[in-house]
Amino acid sequence: MGRTATRERLFTAAIELIAEGGLAATTVDQIAERAGVAKGTVYYNFGSKAALFAALLEYGVDRLATALRDAAAGLPPLGALEAVVAAELAFIGEHEPFARILIAETWRSGGDWQHAARLIRERAIGVIADVLRDAVASGELRSDLDVGTAASAVFGMVLTVALDWRALQPSRAVSDVQATLMDLLRGRLVP
Amino acid sequence: MGRTATRERLFTAAIELIAEGGLAATTVDQIAERAGVAKGTVYYNFGSKAALFAALLEYGVDRLATALRDAAAGLPPLGALEAVVAAELAFIGEHEPFARILIAETWRSGGDWQHAARLIRERAIGVIADVLRDAVASGELRSDLDVGTAASAVFGMVLTVALDWRALQPSRAVSDVQATLMDLLRGRLVP
Repeated sequence: MGRTATRERLFTAAIELIAEGGLAATTVDQIAERAGVAKGTVYYNFGSKAALFAALLEYGVDRLATALRDAAAGLPPLGALEAVVAAELAFIGEHEPFARILIAETWRSGGDWQHAARLIRERAIGVIADVLRDAVASGELRSDLDVGTAASAVFGMVLTVALDWRALQPSRAVSDVQATLMDLLRGRLVP
Repeated sequence: MGRTATRERLFTAAIELIAEGGLAATTVDQIAERAGVAKGTVYYNFGSKAALFAALLEYGVDRLATALRDAAAGLPPLGALEAVVAAELAFIGEHEPFARILIAETWRSGGDWQHAARLIRERAIGVIADVLRDAVASGELRSDLDVGTAASAVFGMVLTVALDWRALQPSRAVSDVQATLMDLLRGRLVP
């Protein structure tokens, strides 16, 4: 099994176990067993549970950032923003347990949350910031827009709405949720 | 010491301890000791750590909802929205450890998160939904606005931006952060 396949299996196993019993109750042995990977391989590659968890968090954030960047590629700025919002919604819909762990561990006090927060800011929120910056450069958005704050706001509103959607109205169409978010972003709230 | 003063002391002590060492590592004995409340009183009133934690979460959410509702009182709809955003930012600035615990525990998988999510939706997000509904009724916002999704989006964007602000740019003025959020909400992004 290659390195990428191993990481993918460890990622899936860890997310399942943490979603089931919480981070504190999940052991490296359980993750290795569920993933069908030798415990020695896990310890050799990561050294500790904290290091394994940090690597898995980073792996998941990378997948999210890649999904957002792929969605935006080749589109005009506001079309790219719409595509990124749709991709974030879709990613959370498909990886809901990971999204819950991400939000829980990223904004937790103490521990590694500051590192994780920077990671998310730089990668996932960074893709949104790039799209907004392009829209400012092309004149589609205001030249004095605070791109960093706006990108963080877009990321957070989509995350919150997506998790509320999955928890409270799972039968609602994703296109419906997306339409309301885009109305908010395009300033279509005023009649 | 009255019931309200006891709850306030338990709330403060629990938030400090959970912020320092995490929920799993925090015991009822530690909370009682830090709060200067007899252990017997805590067990008599709450019965278990889970019940104490649920009551404290509810107490904090109530304080947040009250702060949002007080901020909106007597203002015209869009002014009320602005005041609610400012109040949420201020509350998170003043109760940052509680905000981190709230976000971490609310969107966690399993356990009581669904109950907590409903609680937040009904109370804190409910205040924002009421303000948006008033703005729709007065013709300041579109008549076909999806108020529930928009309220969840506003709550989430303010929460994310506030925590990023405290973690990454704590010296930035709250008025500056608020101005960008209101530009987003008022659709002032387009030049």
